[in-house]
Amino acid sequence: MSAMNIPQSSFPRIIIIGGGFGGIALAKKLSKKEVQVVLLDRHNYHTFQPLLYQVSTGGLEPDSIAYPIRKVLQGYPNFYFRLAEVSKIDTERKSVETNIGSIEYDYLVVAAGSRTNFFGNKAIEKKGMAMKTIPQSLNLRSLILENFEQALLTDDLHERDALMNFVIVGGGPTGVELAGALAEIKRGILPKDYPDLDTRRAQINLVQGSDRILPAMSEIASQKAERFLEGLGVNVWKNIRVMDYDGKRVTTDTKTIFDTATLIWTAGVQAVNIPGLDGKELLCRGNRLKVNRFHQVEGFDEIFAIGDVAQMETEAFPHGHPMMAQPAIQQGRSLGENLVKLLEGKPMKPFVYRDKGSMATVGRNKAVVDLPHVKFQGVFAWFVWMFVHLYFLIGFRNRLVVFINWVYNYVRFDREARLIIRPFKKQYRVSGRRS
Amino acid sequence: MSAMNIPQSSFPRIIIIGGGFGGIALAKKLSKKEVQVVLLDRHNYHTFQPLLYQVSTGGLEPDSIAYPIRKVLQGYPNFYFRLAEVSKIDTERKSVETNIGSIEYDYLVVAAGSRTNFFGNKAIEKKGMAMKTIPQSLNLRSLILENFEQALLTDDLHERDALMNFVIVGGGPTGVELAGALAEIKRGILPKDYPDLDTRRAQINLVQGSDRILPAMSEIASQKAERFLEGLGVNVWKNIRVMDYDGKRVTTDTKTIFDTATLIWTAGVQAVNIPGLDGKELLCRGNRLKVNRFHQVEGFDEIFAIGDVAQMETEAFPHGHPMMAQPAIQQGRSLGENLVKLLEGKPMKPFVYRDKGSMATVGRNKAVVDLPHVKFQGVFAWFVWMFVHLYFLIGFRNRLVVFINWVYNYVRFDREARLIIRPFKKQYRVSGRRS
Repeated sequence: MSAMNIPQSSFPRIIIIGGGFGGIALAKKLSKKEVQVVLLDRHNYHTFQPLLYQVSTGGLEPDSIAYPIRKVLQGYPNFYFRLAEVSKIDTERKSVETNIGSIEYDYLVVAAGSRTNFFGNKAIEKKGMAMKTIPQSLNLRSLILENFEQALLTDDLHERDALMNFVIVGGGPTGVELAGALAEIKRGILPKDYPDLDTRRAQINLVQGSDRILPAMSEIASQKAERFLEGLGVNVWKNIRVMDYDGKRVTTDTKTIFDTATLIWTAGVQAVNIPGLDGKELLCRGNRLKVNRFHQVEGFDEIFAIGDVAQMETEAFPHGHPMMAQPAIQQGRSLGENLVKLLEGKPMKPFVYRDKGSMATVGRNKAVVDLPHVKFQGVFAWFVWMFVHLYFLIGFRNRLVVFINWVYNYVRFDREARLIIRPFKKQYRVSGRRS
Repeated sequence: MSAMNIPQSSFPRIIIIGGGFGGIALAKKLSKKEVQVVLLDRHNYHTFQPLLYQVSTGGLEPDSIAYPIRKVLQGYPNFYFRLAEVSKIDTERKSVETNIGSIEYDYLVVAAGSRTNFFGNKAIEKKGMAMKTIPQSLNLRSLILENFEQALLTDDLHERDALMNFVIVGGGPTGVELAGALAEIKRGILPKDYPDLDTRRAQINLVQGSDRILPAMSEIASQKAERFLEGLGVNVWKNIRVMDYDGKRVTTDTKTIFDTATLIWTAGVQAVNIPGLDGKELLCRGNRLKVNRFHQVEGFDEIFAIGDVAQMETEAFPHGHPMMAQPAIQQGRSLGENLVKLLEGKPMKPFVYRDKGSMATVGRNKAVVDLPHVKFQGVFAWFVWMFVHLYFLIGFRNRLVVFINWVYNYVRFDREARLIIRPFKKQYRVSGRRS
């Protein structure tokens, strides 16, 4: 028995760090194989990150985009889940150290995902909000609602405006989707919820450093998304970089400033590094681990990395695949098949990424979709976006509850999960940390 | 304008403290009347308390039993909601003091509800868990799941058993329902989620001080409920009073002891008192405010109390009505009609409670129902219980989501909200406080 109470087995032991899209896809491929699998995660659930912004804006309950990892593994023989935070990898002893003890591996798969990248700006990390985990999204939900409650109470117009002013930094899909959702709240819910507050003064600002939003998508998608946002009343700022935030004022590299109680940082992610596997020679841009076409981390035959933490440099993707769900899922599946091959002494197959396209939603009836051979925007794109997200959600119940919420929200122009369950301002701020 | 930014109006101002069953029922009755209503609550949502135990046991998401108070009040003219904690009532100046300022009233309705009563036992208040609010229920959900994760890691059999041993103190509906739900988790979910843990050793103990559980219900309901619980494997202990708990060992007034990591206290509630209206002459048993048949607090014409905080002594209920949803709802409605009469100079009508019966559920297909003229138990009672709870839930979306969860849980023998979203052991314990 190891310190984690995992029995020795005659099968080789594969440790997977992380139960995100990559880790779960890999686990499924290994479910019936002659291996012992130990899956470690610091949460007991898988998070469907693409819908976190709907949790923050009261459109979905957090429980419907989370799925118990133990339930995924039900009925898999030789699978062990442990709720653990990994603190170190010892590549010499081939062991992983965690807060609940250490454990040795035959093969190690790092699928630890990414966290918000503040690019070293401590002020923004401390005073701004991040939205990469469910607790962070719930904190943001509480803060948004608390701001409006507080705006009611002040006679200082400048303070009231700052409380109703939202600055979202980063024009990627997360920033765009969040801005659109806030704009819909401003229009559809605030005037009814706060009849004694002039909610028309609420401002939603989306700030993008480069010359277009959704820079990873097509030009037409960027243009349409911007037009959709402007139609919803979002102020889109391009070619502006946010420099600092003291909890009240946002300064930029231009003369533009924003006075706001809420800065939401969606401007970047970086791979989660684990001590022992974070040498400078291993890490690429964004702290990703350099892997070969079989997901082997450079210099190790028995250590693999998939998803956001892995950087596989190919001709089509010289800086690695996008840090999104699709590459992680495909990589998890590919690695699962390759591990079986490896154990059977067969040659592994190099990973080939099939780009299925990308998409972002802005609001009701408004989305942009880039498929490999066709690009479209508008109502149909919006339905495609919803269908794809429902399809990739794990669990029948989650799909059903999300679907019902979406139908309800669509028909009623409403978002009923606008609840301050844990007040944010009373909590310590977790924004910078992965919590 | 008051300090809370509520405008002066030519209508009399009614302040309602508390958005529970009583406060909301009252607000609805006043919606179109010539009054200004200010509703104060320390949460921005109404909590459907009868289903909290399902949140604790992963059967329902918290968001589906909470409802935004502002949404209830949408479209009511002259209604103002403020998220505020009341600290004092000044009956001389006719004002209410809160954390966001003070405000004067013409009429005051105290509907602040109840909180857990530990009967002065500080040790249990500190180390035990309460389940009267959504945050408390989520803490309990986290703790239950964390216990099993921890049980996996220890080789000390005694410690492992203590982690899988649950002691529920109090055999009222909450204790019975929680015990039944835990027993179903033990049977249906634990063996699949924790194949590497001998979950048959998990124990669920329900400890009741008197000689039967559900003492407020009929003898036959008590007997049947006990038989149902025993069928599910719950240990029912009667005529035992829990005396102390140090976080590890529960001692009682007999030789029986329990070694457990989890004591859940459902053995009593007490009215929430507000300084300024808490004189000894006003308070009855359980800190309730003595009111006349018109809900007027003794000695005040313009201060009313309804629901758990009010004690109206009648022939049928010499110690006041039960501290449950039904009396609160009926009292809220009655007071609403009486306030209108009072303002119109008409005589008020004394409150008459219509006892619609009471019920408790033990598990799937198992419930007990006492109606005024008929009592029944079993499958039909279970359907009645579900129907009644769906009916009294506020909001169409909540009803639909709860219904779907119930159907899913029933068909699949599952409870998917077994998520540790905010780990409990890392938090400060809130058990004793209303949070």
